[in-house]
Amino acid sequence: MKVFGDIASGNCYKVKLTLEQLGIAHEWAHVNIVQGETRTENFLCLNPNGKIPVLVLDSGEALSESNAILNYLAAGTPLLPAGRLERARVLEWQFFEQYSHEPYIAVARFINKYLGMPEARRAEYEAKQAGGRKALGVMERQLALTPFLAGDRYTIADISLYAYTHVAHEGGFDLADFPAVGAWLARVRSQPGHVTMEKFLQLNEGIGGN
Amino acid sequence: MKVFGDIASGNCYKVKLTLEQLGIAHEWAHVNIVQGETRTENFLCLNPNGKIPVLVLDSGEALSESNAILNYLAAGTPLLPAGRLERARVLEWQFFEQYSHEPYIAVARFINKYLGMPEARRAEYEAKQAGGRKALGVMERQLALTPFLAGDRYTIADISLYAYTHVAHEGGFDLADFPAVGAWLARVRSQPGHVTMEKFLQLNEGIGGN
Repeated sequence: MKVFGDIASGNCYKVKLTLEQLGIAHEWAHVNIVQGETRTENFLCLNPNGKIPVLVLDSGEALSESNAILNYLAAGTPLLPAGRLERARVLEWQFFEQYSHEPYIAVARFINKYLGMPEARRAEYEAKQAGGRKALGVMERQLALTPFLAGDRYTIADISLYAYTHVAHEGGFDLADFPAVGAWLARVRSQPGHVTMEKFLQLNEGIGGN
Repeated sequence: MKVFGDIASGNCYKVKLTLEQLGIAHEWAHVNIVQGETRTENFLCLNPNGKIPVLVLDSGEALSESNAILNYLAAGTPLLPAGRLERARVLEWQFFEQYSHEPYIAVARFINKYLGMPEARRAEYEAKQAGGRKALGVMERQLALTPFLAGDRYTIADISLYAYTHVAHEGGFDLADFPAVGAWLARVRSQPGHVTMEKFLQLNEGIGGN
C-alpha cells in the first residue's frame, strides 16, 4: 500500500504512527499542501475533496479521511476492539476529534506554524482558542477517569487525539492546565513501537523529502 | 434505549431514521439547544461536550456523536457492510460529512432557520456557501458513478449525508446544480421504512413535544 501525506500534518502522522505500530509495510509519498499539490487533477482523482492523507491499496482503490484509514488499518488488531460498543466508543472519540478538536487546535497551529501568523488571520487564530480549550477540557474529564480515551486499552482513538494534542502548544494551547491530558500524552508515547513526529520528519529528510 | 435529541437537527434525525428503519424500540427525549438544555450539569454528565444526540443504553452507558451512534445501531444489519474496506468506505463518507459538509451546510441552515439570520451572523452565513457547494460537488462526483455513496448498497453513509443535504435549501444551497445528488435524495426517500423529518416532527408534537 501507499500513503500520500505530510508527516508534519497531524492527520497524516496518525496514519504513519498506526502503520508503524502495526508493522505494516508501505510506501510514503510526500504531498506539499501549501504549494497546492492537493489541487492537481491527479490528486483529485485520488480524493475529490482535495485533502491528505490518502491511502492507496495495492488493488488501486483509494481511501481518504484519516480516521477511516485508521479503522481500516487497525481492523482485527489490538488497536481496535471488536465489541460493538467498544468500537463505537472509539468512533465517538474520533468524530469528536474531527468536529470539536481538530478545527480549533489544528487550525490554530496551521495559522501559527505553517502560515507564520499572518495579520489577516490573527483574529481567526484568537477565535480558535476557546474551542480548543473546551476540547481539551472534555479530554481531561475522561482521562481523569480512565487511562486511555476509550477505556483501559490503548486504541486508535488515542492515536487520533494524540496527533494534534501533542503539538497543541504550537497552536497556542498551554497543556499545564490539563494534567490528566499531560499524563496521557506520556502514556501514549510509552506504547511499544511509538515513533515521534520529529523522528519521522528526520527519516523523511533522509530520503529526499519523500 | 433512550435518545436525547431534537428531530429538526439533522444529526438527531439521522439517529431517529436509523432506529426507525431498523425497527429498534426506543424512547425519545426532546432537548432544546437554543434554550440551553445541553448546558445543564445533568446533560453534561451524559455528554461532557454538550451536544445532541446522545444514546443512553439500558445499561446506563451513554454514547454521543451521531455517526458513532449510527455505527453502533447498524452493526450486524444490512445498513452497515461487514467487510473491512466496505466498512471503512462508510466511515470515509461519515467523516467527510462531519468535517467538510456539516460545518458549512448545517451551520448555514442553523443561522438562517433557527436564529432567523441575525445581521451579526450574515457574513458567516455567506462565508459558508462556498464550502457547502464544494461538499455537494464531491457528493455529485461520487453519485454520478454509484447509486449510493459507499457503492451499490444503501448504508448509514447515505443516512448521514441525507440528513442535512435534503434540507440544504434552508441554508441557501440550490440543489438544481447537483442533479445526481437530487436523484440520490429521491432514492434514499424510496427506501423501505423511510420517514421524513416533517413526519417525525408531526408525531413529536402529538406526544407533547417529547
